[in-house]
Amino acid sequence: MHFHKKPFQRVIDVSSGDPHRTGMRPLSFARQVLAACLYPELLKDNSFPSDVRQRAQKLLGVCNGGSVGSYSASSCGIPQIQRSIAEFITRRDGGVASDPEDIIFSSGSQTTLMLVLHLMSSGQGPTQAGVLTPLPCPHTLPMLLDEAAIKLIPYQLLEEQGWALELEELQRALRAAKGHCEPRAIYISNPGNPTGHVQDLKTIEGVIRFAASEQLLLLVEEVYQDSVFGQEQKFLSYKKVLFDMGPKYSDKVEMVSFHSISNGILGECGLRGGYMEVINMDPLVKSFLMSMQAPYSPPVLPQLALEIMVNPPSPGDDSHEVYSQVLQRAEIISQNARRGCEFLNNIAGMSCQPVMGGVFLYPSLQLPVEFIQQAEVLGMQADVLYCQKLLEQEGVCLGPGSENGHDDKNFHIRLCVLAPPAVLEDVLQRLSSFHLRIQERHH
Amino acid sequence: MHFHKKPFQRVIDVSSGDPHRTGMRPLSFARQVLAACLYPELLKDNSFPSDVRQRAQKLLGVCNGGSVGSYSASSCGIPQIQRSIAEFITRRDGGVASDPEDIIFSSGSQTTLMLVLHLMSSGQGPTQAGVLTPLPCPHTLPMLLDEAAIKLIPYQLLEEQGWALELEELQRALRAAKGHCEPRAIYISNPGNPTGHVQDLKTIEGVIRFAASEQLLLLVEEVYQDSVFGQEQKFLSYKKVLFDMGPKYSDKVEMVSFHSISNGILGECGLRGGYMEVINMDPLVKSFLMSMQAPYSPPVLPQLALEIMVNPPSPGDDSHEVYSQVLQRAEIISQNARRGCEFLNNIAGMSCQPVMGGVFLYPSLQLPVEFIQQAEVLGMQADVLYCQKLLEQEGVCLGPGSENGHDDKNFHIRLCVLAPPAVLEDVLQRLSSFHLRIQERHH
Repeated sequence: MHFHKKPFQRVIDVSSGDPHRTGMRPLSFARQVLAACLYPELLKDNSFPSDVRQRAQKLLGVCNGGSVGSYSASSCGIPQIQRSIAEFITRRDGGVASDPEDIIFSSGSQTTLMLVLHLMSSGQGPTQAGVLTPLPCPHTLPMLLDEAAIKLIPYQLLEEQGWALELEELQRALRAAKGHCEPRAIYISNPGNPTGHVQDLKTIEGVIRFAASEQLLLLVEEVYQDSVFGQEQKFLSYKKVLFDMGPKYSDKVEMVSFHSISNGILGECGLRGGYMEVINMDPLVKSFLMSMQAPYSPPVLPQLALEIMVNPPSPGDDSHEVYSQVLQRAEIISQNARRGCEFLNNIAGMSCQPVMGGVFLYPSLQLPVEFIQQAEVLGMQADVLYCQKLLEQEGVCLGPGSENGHDDKNFHIRLCVLAPPAVLEDVLQRLSSFHLRIQERHH
Repeated sequence: MHFHKKPFQRVIDVSSGDPHRTGMRPLSFARQVLAACLYPELLKDNSFPSDVRQRAQKLLGVCNGGSVGSYSASSCGIPQIQRSIAEFITRRDGGVASDPEDIIFSSGSQTTLMLVLHLMSSGQGPTQAGVLTPLPCPHTLPMLLDEAAIKLIPYQLLEEQGWALELEELQRALRAAKGHCEPRAIYISNPGNPTGHVQDLKTIEGVIRFAASEQLLLLVEEVYQDSVFGQEQKFLSYKKVLFDMGPKYSDKVEMVSFHSISNGILGECGLRGGYMEVINMDPLVKSFLMSMQAPYSPPVLPQLALEIMVNPPSPGDDSHEVYSQVLQRAEIISQNARRGCEFLNNIAGMSCQPVMGGVFLYPSLQLPVEFIQQAEVLGMQADVLYCQKLLEQEGVCLGPGSENGHDDKNFHIRLCVLAPPAVLEDVLQRLSSFHLRIQERHH
């Protein structure tokens, strides 16, 4: 066995939204508080700022036995942290009430989603439960649906309109599914993973009316809610819109909203923590969901990280200035997204929609016919072959669009822009020279 | 609404194996290393011992981007930590090889077990998959089986023989299940939760032969492997025994062994971390298992905690002396178990088998006929009513045996002895006065 010398020094992996992997630094306030909770001896001197010490004391106070090593008080989580999250949601949504008992913690939004999918899973053939799923969708979703034996009912997002959701397409997808499965829910990713689209009020209202009239559960992944930028777009939570639409909808439409510490500003993917808020769920179904959760116990440190995420240091606190890293970070994503988008649109055969939020760029690729044929001969998707060759030749790891459920004649690739600007620049240069080589070779 | 003044100052919960809740201190070496991994600035001065700093540097070196905030390199975990665990298993088993690729991490042994149960789940009625399950069993197991739609096939452990497993009973249980479901696996808890029984070589060999001849998968929960004491009993892993039995068995019997940081010595329940070792699994089934795991990513800090658990400081290291807390802790469990057992056996109407390992006592209760009738009127199990009244009157939370799947004419209760000796003493006194009151009231 021998190794070829590679023309690059290190592999850069921007295929998933994992900022620390490419060198983004964690937020020191969060890490200091968590370190002090793990090893409370650190609170005995003044090595940490006073607001860090106070927060750590407060958080240890809500842990059983004052230790992050104890189980949470309930299988849904620590009650005081459920309350912190509910208060955050109420603030975010301009006063719309949130019940702490509707908040359920787990080790990441995939795990909470899977709980709901297992709850929903039933039937076979024409009675199999189905979920209306955007294409492209988050790249782990097709696997989760498959594992839960739930049918993926595709609805296409409109690339030419910046990946907007069109209500007619939802209706078409629902009609097409009838007779093939039992549509039970609509999955929404907003801000969109991997599209970067942020839905406007009119779209959200339309989706809610559609869910109400078709009696579909809304599964709303809102993990990039703190990462919205560009074009004066603002994040609107589905829950706020639902309650602004009045009791005709807000008393009726069932909704589960997912959030996480992995995504957006905090970027703590390795800690594994998230929560869901369960809205208007039938009490019997909800108690069944709770009983499904009962044998597990959610991890404690990620719950503390969520508390920190929703309660950052206030102006005047010792750590407030350091916490302005957060604002810098938002600025970095925004600049990176703009820079990446412009750059890709200047490469022949690539086209990237402007991004309003989230952490991904998702450009389309025109590939030479010969390249596509070569992939066919190898029994591969052309986008998978493209990403594989890019990794081999340039040491850059991107995600192929087919992982996002995208089975299109236009191929796509996915890259995370929450990375240090110099790293992004390096990725773009390597991608560009690879892409041009592919185009030239097949001319 | 008004509150009655309670006759106790605080509630003591010893219903689950959660040592920090009752005031056992975490192991400082582990906590220091984890705190330094979370906040690596702590490595810049000499506040931590040098072996703590070295370990933290080493562990950060195996994290993507040098941060515990990045996803693990694979959905099974961090490859270098898989290797550490495999090396530990090989040492433990006197040289029996362990393949790092057979180690799969997750957020606790319940989560890994559930993955295997979902894999196994199939059929309905007479074709429904079933698992031979000891009674009593770990108290979360009946819920997990139910959630995975797997039939619990009970086999009774022999209380009078210290809760030993009897092969004839396994055979009887299997015969009784035929026609009602498809038996697919045997679940073993060794050291026994909640029984405290540690299986001997002859029993383990018998179970393995039985699994081989009936083609059953062995699900072996060995989370208390480091907590064995009393009567010169030694922990023998099922894997070591399997390989000592030669290729006739070791090439054939499928086995999954579960371990965790929650249980035994480390006692880090709130961190949520565990692993399974998958032995002799059909490669196609194993790759399907991997694909089921693929959408999740195991948490990073608990993997680091597992590495620390299997590689404690060596003699000569700065922290070795402090780590002898571990030995003290083993001594505390052993003394507590002996003390608790003696105490309970001196209470009229209670009987407790001697305990060889694990962290629970599981005494039987003789309850007055009137008490049992009162429970029936309330539609409750008598052991549940007993625990409820004990909590109300004495502020002590124990686990009723019916949670352990035990539906017996003899009632049982479960209490954890991994607690500071003074706390255990308090629990025993309160339990004793409650129990005597119950007996007197109904005479």
